[in-house]
Amino acid sequence: MKILVTGAAGMIGRKLCERLAREGKLGKPITAMHMVDVVEPKAPQAGFSIKTGTADISNDAAVRALVAEKPDTIFHLAAIVSGEAERDFDKGYAVNFDGTRFLFDAVRREHQASRGAYKPRLVYASSAAVFGAPFPEGITDEFHLTPLTSYGTQKAIGELLLADHSRRGFFDGVGLRFPTICVRPGRPNAAASGFFSNIIREPLVGKEAVLPVSDQVRHSHASPRAAVEFCIHAATMDTSKMGWRRSLTMPGVSVTVAEQIEALRRVAGDKAVALIRREPDELVERIVGGWPEKFVTRRAKELGFKAEDSFDAIIRAHIEDELGGRVAV
Amino acid sequence: MKILVTGAAGMIGRKLCERLAREGKLGKPITAMHMVDVVEPKAPQAGFSIKTGTADISNDAAVRALVAEKPDTIFHLAAIVSGEAERDFDKGYAVNFDGTRFLFDAVRREHQASRGAYKPRLVYASSAAVFGAPFPEGITDEFHLTPLTSYGTQKAIGELLLADHSRRGFFDGVGLRFPTICVRPGRPNAAASGFFSNIIREPLVGKEAVLPVSDQVRHSHASPRAAVEFCIHAATMDTSKMGWRRSLTMPGVSVTVAEQIEALRRVAGDKAVALIRREPDELVERIVGGWPEKFVTRRAKELGFKAEDSFDAIIRAHIEDELGGRVAV
Repeated sequence: MKILVTGAAGMIGRKLCERLAREGKLGKPITAMHMVDVVEPKAPQAGFSIKTGTADISNDAAVRALVAEKPDTIFHLAAIVSGEAERDFDKGYAVNFDGTRFLFDAVRREHQASRGAYKPRLVYASSAAVFGAPFPEGITDEFHLTPLTSYGTQKAIGELLLADHSRRGFFDGVGLRFPTICVRPGRPNAAASGFFSNIIREPLVGKEAVLPVSDQVRHSHASPRAAVEFCIHAATMDTSKMGWRRSLTMPGVSVTVAEQIEALRRVAGDKAVALIRREPDELVERIVGGWPEKFVTRRAKELGFKAEDSFDAIIRAHIEDELGGRVAV
Repeated sequence: MKILVTGAAGMIGRKLCERLAREGKLGKPITAMHMVDVVEPKAPQAGFSIKTGTADISNDAAVRALVAEKPDTIFHLAAIVSGEAERDFDKGYAVNFDGTRFLFDAVRREHQASRGAYKPRLVYASSAAVFGAPFPEGITDEFHLTPLTSYGTQKAIGELLLADHSRRGFFDGVGLRFPTICVRPGRPNAAASGFFSNIIREPLVGKEAVLPVSDQVRHSHASPRAAVEFCIHAATMDTSKMGWRRSLTMPGVSVTVAEQIEALRRVAGDKAVALIRREPDELVERIVGGWPEKFVTRRAKELGFKAEDSFDAIIRAHIEDELGGRVAV
């Protein structure tokens, strides 16, 4: 089992590779893993060979070289994130649109050159950003692709290509629409969605965090641990039950900010909650107001994808995975 | 008002250009029209200048040259049809995917070079093939993009690009999901959908036609006249009411084959109906069985798009437009 991971230096890519290194298998024993990103990824300790490298996936030749190694499983996580894709139209389309197409096309060519013998599993990171307002109360698997960002547009196009290439038999694709990942490790960032993680992560280490929106804002979350589990399940599941609808909205925990805060209180006490400072920001409130609140993820659940069942569990996963099990407040 | 029509030698393109030539205006008076296709289109008589030419829209430079003329309205009808796009993967993607992207990108570059002064209306021919089974009873405007052909995939990707480029303000796009066009003029063709037209067109001129499916097959139809009217309305309507969901399922007449035949009987009598020969074909029955039966086209109707209100009217439009008002049976 040879594995290729694009976007391996990103948060999910890094955690996925660490877990694969720890377990040594993905269905079958892993013999080799190639980790690539625009910056050199850090190889975890593993009982199999790991190669790391930098690659620009908007470069067709670079992508073909990666696929020429014929990885059995490809995790395609590389992407320009939402804010940057909106600011830089050309760069977003070059990486998220051309890059994805180059990858799918390179796999098709290897498939055809091998007379069909080469047909990898391809796990594609999509996003809930493929959906745009106005929304029904719960967004089902049958809701249409209505992105309101260039990032969401590029991800939706990738989903369509994934389905068509899978239907044609060039590879066996599974697209995962990730909800917001929470709690994101690292430092507070300026993304409009940053506060969802900030108001949990910072208080847990005794630091103040700013809440720019009202308590009543509702949003869907999954932990980094759940996101890695989605990738592993997508790589090993039986895809014969999927039909040609190859992209799935991943399950998450839909909570209001007030419910996030009460979960923090249950897990870490009043002192943690007291570190959340309310500082309303109309712009953030308006941006977040256009986001999906709740998904009905029947298909993903039927196919065996699992997320946390409460926001408390999301906080506890963060404490275990990032804080060595201890709360410092 | 300068107009560019791609796919101008196709059935809808030709009829659209003839109508524009006859009327001399599209909202404002037309000053020039450029008709292009892979084969040289035939220019109709007109009171304004018409240029015809061949162009391969999968050639970026050729597309840029067309857009450099800064047409105020672009009708993008050029496409590889469904059957051919399925047989020839590369050609379908080259024309329907790359070609569409080159066109949208060329318009964006002219828009940016003009510092926003150039911002044409762009009418994009999409298709009901963006939808794939399984279907609800009526397919609403909120049903998701689930194509089951490469053609439908390419058209759905074009819809997503159209919406993103319109949202960004590069052009003012309207996408039209055409139902099956019936009655198609010309000779019987081998397309799986051909019989829907054959069983009307051929009997009206005293010829036999083969019906390969059961009477109970239901399908949605619009006349070529209605399709041209959709294009004209899309080019002249107020798009401010559309929001960013820029592609619309066009209205049509949903009837069973039995109802088609009864309409033929009312319009042209028993002698015409007697020319339909039943010759069941399992393959055609199976292909057609996966097609949409009925659309709920609330948005298009609210925005002023109109189709015939009965299949009788579709037959009468064919008799008026193609047979000089006379039935030869």
